[in-house]
Amino acid sequence: VELLLLLLQLLLLLLFLFSWGKILVAPVDGSHWLSMKILVKELVARGHEVIVLVPETSLLIKGSQSFSTVMYKVPYTKEELDAKMNELRKGLFKPPQLLDLMENVNRLVNFTTLQAKGCESLLQNRELMNQLREERFEVLLTDPFLPCGSLLSHLFSIPAVYFLRGLPCQLDTRANQCPSPPSFIPIYYSDNTDRMNFPQRVKNTLLYALETYLCTVMYASFDDLVSRYIDKDMTYERLLGEGAIWLLRYDFTFEWPRPIMPNMVFIGGINCAKKAPLPADLEEFVEGSGEDGFIVFTLGSMVSNMPKEIAKLFFDAFRQIPQRVLWRYEGEIPADAPKNVKVLKWLPQNDLLAHPKARVFMTHGGTHGMYEGICNGVPMLMFPLFGDQRDNVHRMVSKGVAEQLLIYDLTTDAIVTGLTKLIHDKSYHDNIKRLSDLHNDRPVSPLDLAVFWTEFVMRHNGADHLRVAAHDLNWIQYFCLDVLAFLALIVITVVWLTVKCCLFCTRKCCRRTAKKKQA
Amino acid sequence: VELLLLLLQLLLLLLFLFSWGKILVAPVDGSHWLSMKILVKELVARGHEVIVLVPETSLLIKGSQSFSTVMYKVPYTKEELDAKMNELRKGLFKPPQLLDLMENVNRLVNFTTLQAKGCESLLQNRELMNQLREERFEVLLTDPFLPCGSLLSHLFSIPAVYFLRGLPCQLDTRANQCPSPPSFIPIYYSDNTDRMNFPQRVKNTLLYALETYLCTVMYASFDDLVSRYIDKDMTYERLLGEGAIWLLRYDFTFEWPRPIMPNMVFIGGINCAKKAPLPADLEEFVEGSGEDGFIVFTLGSMVSNMPKEIAKLFFDAFRQIPQRVLWRYEGEIPADAPKNVKVLKWLPQNDLLAHPKARVFMTHGGTHGMYEGICNGVPMLMFPLFGDQRDNVHRMVSKGVAEQLLIYDLTTDAIVTGLTKLIHDKSYHDNIKRLSDLHNDRPVSPLDLAVFWTEFVMRHNGADHLRVAAHDLNWIQYFCLDVLAFLALIVITVVWLTVKCCLFCTRKCCRRTAKKKQA
Repeated sequence: VELLLLLLQLLLLLLFLFSWGKILVAPVDGSHWLSMKILVKELVARGHEVIVLVPETSLLIKGSQSFSTVMYKVPYTKEELDAKMNELRKGLFKPPQLLDLMENVNRLVNFTTLQAKGCESLLQNRELMNQLREERFEVLLTDPFLPCGSLLSHLFSIPAVYFLRGLPCQLDTRANQCPSPPSFIPIYYSDNTDRMNFPQRVKNTLLYALETYLCTVMYASFDDLVSRYIDKDMTYERLLGEGAIWLLRYDFTFEWPRPIMPNMVFIGGINCAKKAPLPADLEEFVEGSGEDGFIVFTLGSMVSNMPKEIAKLFFDAFRQIPQRVLWRYEGEIPADAPKNVKVLKWLPQNDLLAHPKARVFMTHGGTHGMYEGICNGVPMLMFPLFGDQRDNVHRMVSKGVAEQLLIYDLTTDAIVTGLTKLIHDKSYHDNIKRLSDLHNDRPVSPLDLAVFWTEFVMRHNGADHLRVAAHDLNWIQYFCLDVLAFLALIVITVVWLTVKCCLFCTRKCCRRTAKKKQA
Repeated sequence: VELLLLLLQLLLLLLFLFSWGKILVAPVDGSHWLSMKILVKELVARGHEVIVLVPETSLLIKGSQSFSTVMYKVPYTKEELDAKMNELRKGLFKPPQLLDLMENVNRLVNFTTLQAKGCESLLQNRELMNQLREERFEVLLTDPFLPCGSLLSHLFSIPAVYFLRGLPCQLDTRANQCPSPPSFIPIYYSDNTDRMNFPQRVKNTLLYALETYLCTVMYASFDDLVSRYIDKDMTYERLLGEGAIWLLRYDFTFEWPRPIMPNMVFIGGINCAKKAPLPADLEEFVEGSGEDGFIVFTLGSMVSNMPKEIAKLFFDAFRQIPQRVLWRYEGEIPADAPKNVKVLKWLPQNDLLAHPKARVFMTHGGTHGMYEGICNGVPMLMFPLFGDQRDNVHRMVSKGVAEQLLIYDLTTDAIVTGLTKLIHDKSYHDNIKRLSDLHNDRPVSPLDLAVFWTEFVMRHNGADHLRVAAHDLNWIQYFCLDVLAFLALIVITVVWLTVKCCLFCTRKCCRRTAKKKQA
């Protein structure tokens, strides 16, 4: 066996030496990294040389044995970064206020502006930039939530592959020239579905206009960076439009059906592609749940704690149900915590949901968790906290596979009622089973698809044949407004000339008749 | 070996008995059938029970050992059908006239109207209709060039899978609610590419409007049929919109990049997926061509003959070149025909083009041949005849992989010059090689993809989650014109009220001042 392992290591070394290509990765920290890491590791496993660019101060990104990292200095400390993150988390457990939208936008802008500064310090690091440029990467894999990757792609002339779920204010579809008629594509947070009546369409159209305005506010610091380092007239939106392939964590069991573009590749559910057996203690715990099954409860990688009084509501609720509960929670555990609850600092969430005894998934509605709920077919009790979560939850609820509770307006009864409904009303189970069947039924697994298209871009130095010519048009040209104005002008001129001619003729005739009469 | 064969037959029989599903196929005759047949045969090979609906009077569709056919009576004879076909072929070898567009539209309408009558006689055949209904098919595979399939799909409530390259006047994208801005999507026969200057965009927009009008003319008989057999207010376009999956013989090495829809599946090149070795005599002939290689010359399944004087030009041209030529031609062969030319009644076109010694493909520019040229990477000398061919040729020429000659305006010199250019100018070879590499590089073969999505529709009884809600909107709602009018009304009212108020106030003030002055 040892000899075999040695041989295997030798083989891996050989593969590495003759690796297919060189890939530069510019990731985004936090939960964004969790699914991109899956693709990065797979690319390494397939023999590519991968270098991941990591800011010195980061939250989740760490070096690994399987890929190399290159650190770069940033002008902020871990404390400052954590402070900004905490700002984002602020008010999660309190009822939202009317002015929260602008407040939230401000906090997000503060957070991204800080990271844009980190990016700028990389761009100014001449030594590192030269070193990277000389590596002659074949492709740049990045999450365009932050501008560093697409900037490097442009500056180094390397084709870019984007990896994302979507960008605030739909900058992704805008940049990719993807039509999004507000008549059947609901705006985030509009609480609309894709079928809208007249008042809903009015609301949606107004929100679309608001979103267009918000785009200019939200990406001001990126636009500034781009115009300083590339071209005065360049915007972040135009820079993004240069991307070769958009790997979107999209799936139409979750997203509303909509027009798409040839360079959009759908890899929704990439995070639940691979499953591992449960650790022995968890396996024993969930197997012991008998006919009643068990519940998985997490609020995502960013929120591992909650106010004591809210936690108490959950403990009290769990005491009243026969199911066992696995809860990712780092807060204080009361002495009288019910025995059917197992509290842990980390959960193998996807592996647990894949267990046939999983009954309900209690989640905040982040896209990773939601796809794990969908692909494993487990109904969800959802507590949206921030970002895109309220909108995600709205979709799941409107598809009849989830119930929503507001974390700032909870009662023990509401939790128990919600859980009971999800477990005993067969419709939730049937609906999620249907979504799950649709979601899992595809010709190529999302991970293989993501690898294929990344390698495609490497093989062909981009994917220009999938890029629409609309990128060269401004919006007046795109909507043919100049053509319509020109045609209108012709019509008006012709009508005017005809009228003038007629008037001229009639006048002449009248004069003649008048003269005749006079005569 | 015999025992093995017997066992294999037994296995096939078993597979047939426990076949996965029942598929009804409503094909379109002529070249349309050539590629659909590939999918039909593959579905049979995978164990499905397939029944192909064939009009008693047909051109190319014949029964086969691998699939069952059900014949239905039609109110026209083979002679009448051939006469209509000949009408379509009329004037192929003469220069086009100014009024040809309307003439061609008329001929096409005559041809499809005849076939719509054939469809009606099936709908009126109660016995057969009942028999088909009771078979409880799981999916209906059809080419929507004719309306029979989608009518049956609606009447029997079976989900439909469409198999096509595209429909006249873009009815396919219209019916599937796929946005097609005329600012970067060139209209067929506009001679535009996807990059247009202002005059070209004016032309394109006007042609788009003309096309919209032509749609109502071209599909009048289908609309009539649909409104009589389904619903008074139903149009063929709306009926088509019910389709679950559109298997499009599309590939972006050939089509201009454009917005697409989630239920559009691209299977361009499905006809060159499988290759067979050449028959011994052909193999010997092409191998004997030496360094100079050989040329393949066909004008498609519909045109196997040409006027003698035109054929002479080709013979004379071939006499002047060192390449060998394989020519599919049923006309008279002159006594002094050059020895480097082999004339045959049928050619294994794709297998020949796959041969490394193939230098040029002389073709009329039908989509089947063109994909075979692309996937095998052979530059093309093109002679567009009718239908979409001129437009296809225009694309290939603008991509630098082909040269065009007009069949009614030929000289021997032009043919020789064209061939020489294509063989010796390296750019054609490099360009087609690049297109070929892009075209052949995909995660799933087009045939497997077509099978997958047909089976997907069978497994899930449709693909509703990929169908946009825009189908429920009329065009005023789609473009939010009602919303804009409503918002404009509000703005106007507010402005009007403000102005009125201001005027009222100023008047009051003025009066007071006037009174004061009087006082």
